[in-house]
Amino acid sequence: MFFGIPPMNKIYARECIHAIGGYTPGEQLTGRRIVKLNTNENPYPPSPKVGEALHALDWETLRLYPNPTGEALRKKAAEVFGVAANRILCGNGSDDLLTIALRTFVGEGEAYAYPEPSYSLYPVLADLQGAIRRPFQLNDSFELPDDVLSQAADAKLLMLARPNAPTGNATPKARLHELCKQFPGVVWIDEAYADFADDNCLNFVDEFPNVVVSRTFSKSYALAGLRLGLAFAQEHLIEEMLKLKDSYNTDRIAQALGEAALGDQDWLHDTCAKVRATRAWTTDELLRRGWQVLPSQANFLLAKPAHRPADELFAKLRERGLLVRYFALPRVDQFLRITIGTDDEMRELLNALAELDR
Amino acid sequence: MFFGIPPMNKIYARECIHAIGGYTPGEQLTGRRIVKLNTNENPYPPSPKVGEALHALDWETLRLYPNPTGEALRKKAAEVFGVAANRILCGNGSDDLLTIALRTFVGEGEAYAYPEPSYSLYPVLADLQGAIRRPFQLNDSFELPDDVLSQAADAKLLMLARPNAPTGNATPKARLHELCKQFPGVVWIDEAYADFADDNCLNFVDEFPNVVVSRTFSKSYALAGLRLGLAFAQEHLIEEMLKLKDSYNTDRIAQALGEAALGDQDWLHDTCAKVRATRAWTTDELLRRGWQVLPSQANFLLAKPAHRPADELFAKLRERGLLVRYFALPRVDQFLRITIGTDDEMRELLNALAELDR
Repeated sequence: MFFGIPPMNKIYARECIHAIGGYTPGEQLTGRRIVKLNTNENPYPPSPKVGEALHALDWETLRLYPNPTGEALRKKAAEVFGVAANRILCGNGSDDLLTIALRTFVGEGEAYAYPEPSYSLYPVLADLQGAIRRPFQLNDSFELPDDVLSQAADAKLLMLARPNAPTGNATPKARLHELCKQFPGVVWIDEAYADFADDNCLNFVDEFPNVVVSRTFSKSYALAGLRLGLAFAQEHLIEEMLKLKDSYNTDRIAQALGEAALGDQDWLHDTCAKVRATRAWTTDELLRRGWQVLPSQANFLLAKPAHRPADELFAKLRERGLLVRYFALPRVDQFLRITIGTDDEMRELLNALAELDR
Repeated sequence: MFFGIPPMNKIYARECIHAIGGYTPGEQLTGRRIVKLNTNENPYPPSPKVGEALHALDWETLRLYPNPTGEALRKKAAEVFGVAANRILCGNGSDDLLTIALRTFVGEGEAYAYPEPSYSLYPVLADLQGAIRRPFQLNDSFELPDDVLSQAADAKLLMLARPNAPTGNATPKARLHELCKQFPGVVWIDEAYADFADDNCLNFVDEFPNVVVSRTFSKSYALAGLRLGLAFAQEHLIEEMLKLKDSYNTDRIAQALGEAALGDQDWLHDTCAKVRATRAWTTDELLRRGWQVLPSQANFLLAKPAHRPADELFAKLRERGLLVRYFALPRVDQFLRITIGTDDEMRELLNALAELDR
């Protein structure tokens, strides 16, 4: 059999992949001093125990494969979160876990529901899986619409961020509890920002066979560069997801440093308290200036300027090395998303805005 | 709308996931001295430059996301491999890249071809994607069958390991060149073990628009615990795969240590030369004892004992803390797969076998 030399202009990728836009890496400014308030990183360094664990590592052991499921990390997480170890799945960042979610629960051509506006990765995950996007609009207060159940009725998976990004607000726990009870498929509660919130839904895992809660080390633990996340669910869901994950999806260093980070809950509480305090006074100051600020339970604010258009302020702040996030998307294109930095960083931002927004 | 409380015994996973067996983590013996010759790890530690890079890391920078595509690592790889940086994709181990391969090129219900016996992950990747397995049997010498093209004719992706695992042999380069020319879909050449071989197929990437070559840091670079791999292909294939990968699939530490590892090619050449020398004398000794040993281009041997059944020897070696690999699978169940260790480790194995295999 002879097919001839493969043509140069042939498209080898699946149509659902080829049809979508190329990946756009996040903005990486270098070569000058930047106040980076654009990707919701923690302004404080990780726990010093993470640094100690890093330097205590025996690099020669890197020749050996990691534990496939991160058993030591799982055990530590079980202790910290009060959830059995076999109800915990470790991921290479919570993005890895979200990918596993789609691949485990949603087949090609099946529906997957998520709110808009929310984390911009959610619709992309649908495209990559060849799944059907089933977005539903948050209401005027950026809260879940009354008819979310009927809008998501045919979806195998319902994804919800709590607190939500980029809006920062959190669905009332009682409302979400009712939703988990009534939705026939899997409800995935993405709690990437939960450590900055007043409460969380981790205990839903005990109650519901169809709920997964995910957390990340990227925000509250200040380990975005390490890639580590955890998913919590009943065993029958964890077992299916374990089949999907890469055999060794978390590496030796991430497992060791994650364990060290979990071991320093005092650091976590202090850091989150600082971020919340900064969030409170920054919110007050913006409100005082006539901005609209959504009530935030996360480490960022979604805020609408009092005088100037958001995109104009974004560009002018950027010229001064003050990097915030602007989304040219429906419903949020009048807002800036501002990561909570240190007190000094927020003062610098507010001083610049005092000049620019008038 | 009210659906009632979700039932406890409902199956939420896709049928193609639920139907397959649970994940079995590799054997991790602890608590006593083990000679570990079962997972093709490198018996030597990574380059000391990796250790230096680890301890030079500023752990406070872990609060920031990594570069999404690992630009510094890509540039270093471009220099070392003589391939343009935009023809290189970094992965969280080459398993991550293999998953990306299936997801980019093979839709649910589409065919995917691979040899048997080969890397046991290949058929699992088909199941996880809901793809159709299209395995073809290697011939009696464990080489590609004459009719591979017609057997794989409807496949979107043809996966081939060169050198192959667990057999250790390598398809002649001219044969593979012809196959790449004639196969209408994507040919993925998994070169996990290529640094231990006499030659490799990396230059096929220049010639063929339908070829991907992947490498791993787990074997020759002794960094199995770090999770890092590279795929090489023309831009149009790399661009599609970039859409599929997790936004930050490789972490800051892996990028920095991978760059350091690539920077010490002298260490790589010395280590691979040692493994090849040990492979040569171990092969000779087993042949002298009447074993059948397949010609290996990798860091392991597939060998059939002269006197006792392979599974019996596997169990008895294990009792002595000598861990090799036994596959209870068609065609290889008379063989042991033995990772090449240090000279001392191989002498210890051979001494034990002198007692056990008679």
